[in-house]
Amino acid sequence: VAAGAALAAKAGVRVLLFGPASELGDPPPGVQITDAPVSIAKSPDPATAVRNTPDASIVMAARAVASGQAQALVCAGGTGAALAAGLFNIKRALGIYRPALALTLPAPNGPVTLLDVGANTECRREHLVQFAFMGAALVAVTLGLERPRVGLLSNGSEIQRGNPTVIATNAELLERSGEAFQFVGNVEGDTVLSGQADVIVTDGFTGNIALKLIEGTSQTVLGAVRDAAMSSQRSKLGGLLLKPSLLAFRERIDPEAQGGAYLLGLRNLGVVAHGRFTRAGFAQAILRAHAGAHGQLISKTHATLLTACALRSAPASGQTASLPPH
Amino acid sequence: VAAGAALAAKAGVRVLLFGPASELGDPPPGVQITDAPVSIAKSPDPATAVRNTPDASIVMAARAVASGQAQALVCAGGTGAALAAGLFNIKRALGIYRPALALTLPAPNGPVTLLDVGANTECRREHLVQFAFMGAALVAVTLGLERPRVGLLSNGSEIQRGNPTVIATNAELLERSGEAFQFVGNVEGDTVLSGQADVIVTDGFTGNIALKLIEGTSQTVLGAVRDAAMSSQRSKLGGLLLKPSLLAFRERIDPEAQGGAYLLGLRNLGVVAHGRFTRAGFAQAILRAHAGAHGQLISKTHATLLTACALRSAPASGQTASLPPH
Repeated sequence: VAAGAALAAKAGVRVLLFGPASELGDPPPGVQITDAPVSIAKSPDPATAVRNTPDASIVMAARAVASGQAQALVCAGGTGAALAAGLFNIKRALGIYRPALALTLPAPNGPVTLLDVGANTECRREHLVQFAFMGAALVAVTLGLERPRVGLLSNGSEIQRGNPTVIATNAELLERSGEAFQFVGNVEGDTVLSGQADVIVTDGFTGNIALKLIEGTSQTVLGAVRDAAMSSQRSKLGGLLLKPSLLAFRERIDPEAQGGAYLLGLRNLGVVAHGRFTRAGFAQAILRAHAGAHGQLISKTHATLLTACALRSAPASGQTASLPPH
Repeated sequence: VAAGAALAAKAGVRVLLFGPASELGDPPPGVQITDAPVSIAKSPDPATAVRNTPDASIVMAARAVASGQAQALVCAGGTGAALAAGLFNIKRALGIYRPALALTLPAPNGPVTLLDVGANTECRREHLVQFAFMGAALVAVTLGLERPRVGLLSNGSEIQRGNPTVIATNAELLERSGEAFQFVGNVEGDTVLSGQADVIVTDGFTGNIALKLIEGTSQTVLGAVRDAAMSSQRSKLGGLLLKPSLLAFRERIDPEAQGGAYLLGLRNLGVVAHGRFTRAGFAQAILRAHAGAHGQLISKTHATLLTACALRSAPASGQTASLPPH
């Protein structure tokens, strides 16, 4: 993490780093270290851990964002803790039911943005509908897509397919498809990567499984290709010749290149990197957060939702109710 | 379909084929054609279609199984119609809450059987628990696995991760892990194909999406490898040399080689092929059904569930209640 922060600082980002100072060494130029040795990243109950551990590194980082010391929160592992710390300290943006994690995946016919990939294990119709607007606003800003195509992940392409929440969401998105996005209906698992939709909406349980299935299956197939390339002398030579192109492909689908998922729906931007990332991934996460903050991703998303009447009109209920159970 | 039936008949299976006689031509040796020109495979409401269309091909086929004319039902497209026709005519096996679709996928460290891949869009804890026993019994018979490892698909490996149904199912499977199977806990999307579990349990909504994501991602990555092999003269030569090994791999993961999914939980066996299959896939589906009927898959599954006290003790409620909405 510290090495990633150093890389990002070299690229011109001012980084406030919260972590165990004794392990982080001397701060590199552009990085300011605040000693925060307590981690709740692996807590089984992040909401309680955030409440009871004001000196946890993620809580201190979230407070720095809330107070205006920093413009965006980057989390280096422990999605649940980041979400809880964000909700308690940065707080939900006005009119947002639930923050969501949005990840943009590379695909042959253009990037696909999947949300929610894990912030909300259970979602109601109104949450999924708002995710559609949030995702559309995100790719409008980050990818410059005007009126992006939004799909709904389901177990069949027909409007009557899905669980009751998905069916109800499909009906509402069909009605609300308009200026902000074009609703392309249900998207099945085998067409997620085929370019039918720029944004695919789902609940955080299904979305997290879907994202990891894509990553795991990609790695499995690439591993099998590697094994195939070792199966004979002829194949070995073929593999050797093909290697540069395959490495370029592997690099293109490297999750670290994305820098993690955007956490949308708080008053400031969050980026959640994967705990397994190397320095390159963490640096990328910080650069994404920096670009998003500078590009006013949050206020532009808010403006889109406001224009589309996609904000919750009633005052938001207590934050605790919207915290994920874990 | 007819060509697939002919292939299966050549391999020694007696096939009763229900479909439009005018399109099927002369019956090949070993195939008996019953004219059934009405199809409800694409009906948006299969349960109603089954009730109102006694002369639909799938209904006539299911009745032939129910009456003992045939030992297993093979469906060549239209999962919902097959399930509804099976429930109405073949009927649920005693003590089974819900029939489930189980598909065995090839994976580098051994096959993985996923269920439910689409029969039940919504599942309760007791359904998922029974699927664990059904899946374990299936792979015991079809793959000869004693005490297979059963996992539960979730958005995190820890016991507290998942939606409420998954969390409750995890707790019960942990308790009931025993002679019939070894429960390995939650399995995340990225480890479905890694060989942690022989059987992976999930609801039909998530399972259908998961299965199609695996298929779609595999095809996308293989397509990208093909594109990489076209990107330069050097790569082209490499691709040419690697081609035989890659074709062998592609064949190994070909969904048609599996012949479709087992429909478990009725009084007779069902096999649901994919409507997109070529003759080879339909023939394989018929051969699987034949092998399953001869291997007494259904009675052995029942015996396993009985021994493990995994059958529903109360009399089953009306069939209509257990029909999927579509």
